[in-house]
Amino acid sequence: MNENVLAIQQLLDGVDNHWQPMIINKGDFDFRLVKFSGEFEWHCHKHSDKVILVVAGEMAIRFANQDDVVVKAGEIYVLPKGVLHQPYAIAECHIVLIELAGRGK
Amino acid sequence: MNENVLAIQQLLDGVDNHWQPMIINKGDFDFRLVKFSGEFEWHCHKHSDKVILVVAGEMAIRFANQDDVVVKAGEIYVLPKGVLHQPYAIAECHIVLIELAGRGK
Repeated sequence: MNENVLAIQQLLDGVDNHWQPMIINKGDFDFRLVKFSGEFEWHCHKHSDKVILVVAGEMAIRFANQDDVVVKAGEIYVLPKGVLHQPYAIAECHIVLIELAGRGK
Repeated sequence: MNENVLAIQQLLDGVDNHWQPMIINKGDFDFRLVKFSGEFEWHCHKHSDKVILVVAGEMAIRFANQDDVVVKAGEIYVLPKGVLHQPYAIAECHIVLIELAGRGK
Protein backbone atom coordinates (compact mmCIF):
# COMPACT_ATOMS: atom_id res chain seq x y z
CA MET A 1 0.00 0.00 0.00
CA ASN A 2 1.23 3.48 -0.82
CA GLU A 3 2.59 5.16 2.31
CA ASN A 4 0.30 8.12 1.73
CA VAL A 5 -2.86 6.01 1.92
CA LEU A 6 -4.49 6.06 5.35
CA ALA A 7 -6.18 2.76 6.24
CA ILE A 8 -8.63 4.11 8.79
CA GLN A 9 -9.40 0.93 10.75
CA GLN A 10 -5.77 -0.18 10.83
CA LEU A 11 -4.69 3.21 12.15
CA LEU A 12 -7.43 3.22 14.79
CA ASP A 13 -6.29 -0.24 15.86
CA GLY A 14 -3.00 1.43 16.79
CA VAL A 15 -4.70 3.99 19.06
CA ASP A 16 -4.49 2.57 22.59
CA ASN A 17 -5.84 5.27 24.88
CA HIS A 18 -9.02 7.28 24.95
CA TRP A 19 -8.76 10.98 24.12
CA GLN A 20 -5.17 10.57 22.93
CA PRO A 21 -5.26 11.16 19.18
CA MET A 22 -2.87 9.81 16.59
CA ILE A 23 -2.04 12.88 14.52
CA ILE A 24 -1.09 12.60 10.85
CA ASN A 25 -0.45 15.47 8.48
CA LYS A 26 -1.10 15.15 4.77
CA GLY A 27 -0.59 18.38 2.86
CA ASP A 28 -3.35 20.92 3.54
CA PHE A 29 -4.97 18.69 6.16
CA ASP A 30 -4.27 17.28 9.60
CA PHE A 31 -5.97 14.03 10.61
CA ARG A 32 -6.57 12.97 14.19
CA LEU A 33 -7.65 9.41 14.88
CA VAL A 34 -9.32 9.26 18.26
CA LYS A 35 -11.07 6.74 20.48
CA PHE A 36 -13.11 7.84 23.43
CA SER A 37 -15.87 7.09 25.84
CA GLY A 38 -17.39 9.34 28.48
CA GLU A 39 -17.20 13.08 28.04
CA PHE A 40 -14.47 15.61 27.31
CA GLU A 41 -14.09 19.08 28.80
CA TRP A 42 -15.84 22.14 27.39
CA HIS A 43 -13.53 23.78 24.84
CA CYS A 44 -13.34 25.78 21.65
CA HIS A 45 -11.30 25.45 18.42
CA LYS A 46 -10.29 28.91 17.36
CA HIS A 47 -8.57 28.43 14.02
CA SER A 48 -10.29 25.78 11.91
CA ASP A 49 -13.66 24.19 11.43
CA LYS A 50 -13.33 20.46 12.14
CA VAL A 51 -14.67 17.62 10.07
CA ILE A 52 -15.78 14.88 12.44
CA LEU A 53 -16.16 11.50 10.73
CA VAL A 54 -17.58 8.88 13.07
CA VAL A 55 -16.24 5.45 12.12
CA ALA A 56 -17.72 3.42 14.98
CA GLY A 57 -19.98 4.13 17.94
CA GLU A 58 -22.11 7.19 18.52
CA MET A 59 -21.27 10.61 19.92
CA ALA A 60 -22.95 13.87 20.69
CA ILE A 61 -21.83 17.44 21.14
CA ARG A 62 -23.27 19.73 23.78
CA PHE A 63 -23.47 23.47 23.06
CA ALA A 64 -24.27 26.44 25.24
CA ASN A 65 -27.19 27.72 23.19
CA GLN A 66 -28.50 24.97 20.94
CA ASP A 67 -29.62 21.36 21.10
CA ASP A 68 -27.04 18.60 21.26
CA VAL A 69 -25.90 17.30 17.88
CA VAL A 70 -25.81 13.51 17.65
CA VAL A 71 -23.37 11.92 15.16
CA LYS A 72 -23.41 8.18 14.46
CA ALA A 73 -21.10 5.78 12.64
CA GLY A 74 -21.11 6.62 8.93
CA GLU A 75 -21.98 10.27 9.52
CA ILE A 76 -19.96 13.48 9.27
CA TYR A 77 -20.46 16.69 11.22
CA VAL A 78 -18.53 19.89 10.65
CA LEU A 79 -17.95 21.69 13.93
CA PRO A 80 -17.64 25.43 13.36
CA LYS A 81 -14.58 27.19 14.73
CA GLY A 82 -15.04 29.51 17.69
CA VAL A 83 -17.97 27.63 19.24
CA LEU A 84 -17.74 26.47 22.84
CA HIS A 85 -18.75 22.81 23.01
CA GLN A 86 -18.43 19.56 24.91
CA PRO A 87 -18.19 16.24 23.03
CA TYR A 88 -19.30 13.04 24.69
CA ALA A 89 -19.68 9.41 23.68
CA ILE A 90 -23.09 7.77 23.71
CA ALA A 91 -21.40 4.46 22.79
CA GLU A 92 -17.58 4.13 22.68
CA CYS A 93 -16.56 6.14 19.71
CA HIS A 94 -13.87 5.87 17.02
CA ILE A 95 -13.56 9.00 14.95
CA VAL A 96 -11.39 10.76 12.39
CA LEU A 97 -11.06 14.53 12.75
CA ILE A 98 -9.94 16.47 9.70
CA GLU A 99 -8.85 20.10 9.96
CA LEU A 100 -6.75 22.66 8.17
CA ALA A 101 -3.07 21.80 8.65
CA GLY A 102 -1.40 23.53 11.55
CA ARG A 103 -4.60 25.03 12.96
CA GLY A 104 -5.16 22.48 15.70
CA LYS A 105 -6.14 23.23 19.30
CA MET B 1 -31.10 14.40 12.71
CA ASN B 2 -29.44 17.80 12.76
CA GLU B 3 -29.47 19.37 9.30
CA ASN B 4 -25.72 19.86 9.49
CA VAL B 5 -25.01 16.16 9.93
CA LEU B 6 -24.07 14.42 6.69
CA ALA B 7 -25.28 10.79 6.54
CA ILE B 8 -22.80 9.52 3.98
CA GLN B 9 -24.64 6.45 2.70
CA GLN B 10 -27.99 8.23 2.57
CA LEU B 11 -26.47 11.08 0.56
CA LEU B 12 -24.72 8.67 -1.83
CA ASP B 13 -28.05 6.92 -2.34
CA GLY B 14 -29.25 10.22 -3.81
CA VAL B 15 -26.45 10.36 -6.38
CA ASP B 16 -27.83 8.88 -9.58
CA ASN B 17 -25.18 9.34 -12.21
CA HIS B 18 -21.52 8.47 -12.43
CA TRP B 19 -19.01 11.33 -12.30
CA GLN B 20 -21.76 13.81 -11.31
CA PRO B 21 -20.97 14.84 -7.75
CA MET B 22 -23.42 16.06 -5.15
CA ILE B 23 -21.68 19.14 -3.74
CA ILE B 24 -22.26 20.29 -0.17
CA ASN B 25 -20.51 23.16 1.59
CA LYS B 26 -20.01 23.13 5.35
CA GLY B 27 -17.91 26.04 6.59
CA ASP B 28 -14.24 25.72 5.67
CA PHE B 29 -14.87 22.59 3.62
CA ASP B 30 -16.62 21.48 0.45
CA PHE B 31 -17.81 17.88 0.19
CA ARG B 32 -18.40 16.06 -3.09
CA LEU B 33 -20.21 12.74 -3.03
CA VAL B 34 -19.38 10.85 -6.18
CA LYS B 35 -20.10 7.47 -7.76
CA PHE B 36 -18.10 6.25 -10.70
CA SER B 37 -16.88 3.34 -12.74
CA GLY B 38 -14.43 3.33 -15.61
CA GLU B 39 -11.89 6.10 -15.89
CA PHE B 40 -11.95 9.89 -15.83
CA GLU B 41 -9.89 12.26 -17.95
CA TRP B 42 -6.38 13.38 -17.00
CA HIS B 43 -6.64 16.59 -14.97
CA CYS B 44 -5.14 18.67 -12.22
CA HIS B 45 -6.55 20.48 -9.15
CA LYS B 46 -4.74 23.77 -8.81
CA HIS B 47 -6.04 25.24 -5.59
CA SER B 48 -6.54 22.62 -2.90
CA ASP B 49 -5.28 19.23 -1.88
CA LYS B 50 -8.21 16.79 -1.93
CA VAL B 51 -9.10 14.27 0.73
CA ILE B 52 -10.44 11.17 -1.02
CA LEU B 53 -12.43 8.92 1.30
CA VAL B 54 -13.45 5.69 -0.40
CA VAL B 55 -16.75 4.47 1.05
CA ALA B 56 -17.36 1.50 -1.27
CA GLY B 57 -15.48 -0.13 -4.12
CA GLU B 58 -11.86 0.34 -5.08
CA MET B 59 -10.15 3.02 -7.14
CA ALA B 60 -6.73 3.91 -8.36
CA ILE B 61 -5.03 7.06 -9.54
CA ARG B 62 -2.58 7.12 -12.43
CA PHE B 63 0.24 9.69 -12.40
CA ALA B 64 2.74 10.74 -15.02
CA ASN B 65 5.86 9.95 -13.01
CA GLN B 66 5.00 7.57 -10.21
CA ASP B 67 3.25 4.25 -9.62
CA ASP B 68 -0.54 4.16 -9.47
CA VAL B 69 -2.01 4.71 -6.00
CA VAL B 70 -4.74 2.22 -5.09
CA VAL B 71 -7.39 3.31 -2.55
CA LYS B 72 -9.95 0.84 -1.19
CA ALA B 73 -13.13 1.17 0.86
CA GLY B 74 -12.24 2.41 4.34
CA GLU B 75 -9.11 4.20 3.16
CA ILE B 76 -8.24 7.85 2.67
CA TYR B 77 -5.77 9.33 0.21
CA VAL B 78 -4.83 13.00 0.04
CA LEU B 79 -4.23 14.03 -3.53
CA PRO B 80 -1.73 16.91 -3.69
CA LYS B 81 -2.74 20.03 -5.60
CA GLY B 82 -1.02 20.75 -8.87
CA VAL B 83 -0.41 17.12 -9.83
CA LEU B 84 -1.66 15.83 -13.17
CA HIS B 85 -3.54 12.59 -12.58
CA GLN B 86 -6.21 10.23 -13.88
CA PRO B 87 -8.57 8.47 -11.46
CA TYR B 88 -10.19 5.19 -12.42
CA ALA B 89 -12.39 2.63 -10.73
CA ILE B 90 -11.15 -0.90 -10.18
CA ALA B 91 -14.61 -1.78 -8.83
CA GLU B 92 -17.54 0.68 -8.96
CA CYS B 93 -16.61 3.32 -6.48
CA HIS B 94 -18.48 5.53 -4.01
CA ILE B 95 -16.33 8.27 -2.56
CA VAL B 96 -16.42 11.47 -0.55
CA LEU B 97 -14.02 14.23 -1.62
CA ILE B 98 -13.21 16.90 0.94
CA GLU B 99 -11.44 20.09 -0.07
CA LEU B 100 -10.96 23.67 1.07
CA ALA B 101 -14.18 25.59 0.47
CA GLY B 102 -14.37 27.44 -2.81
CA ARG B 103 -11.16 25.94 -4.21
CA GLY B 104 -12.75 23.26 -6.38
CA LYS B 105 -11.79 22.42 -9.94
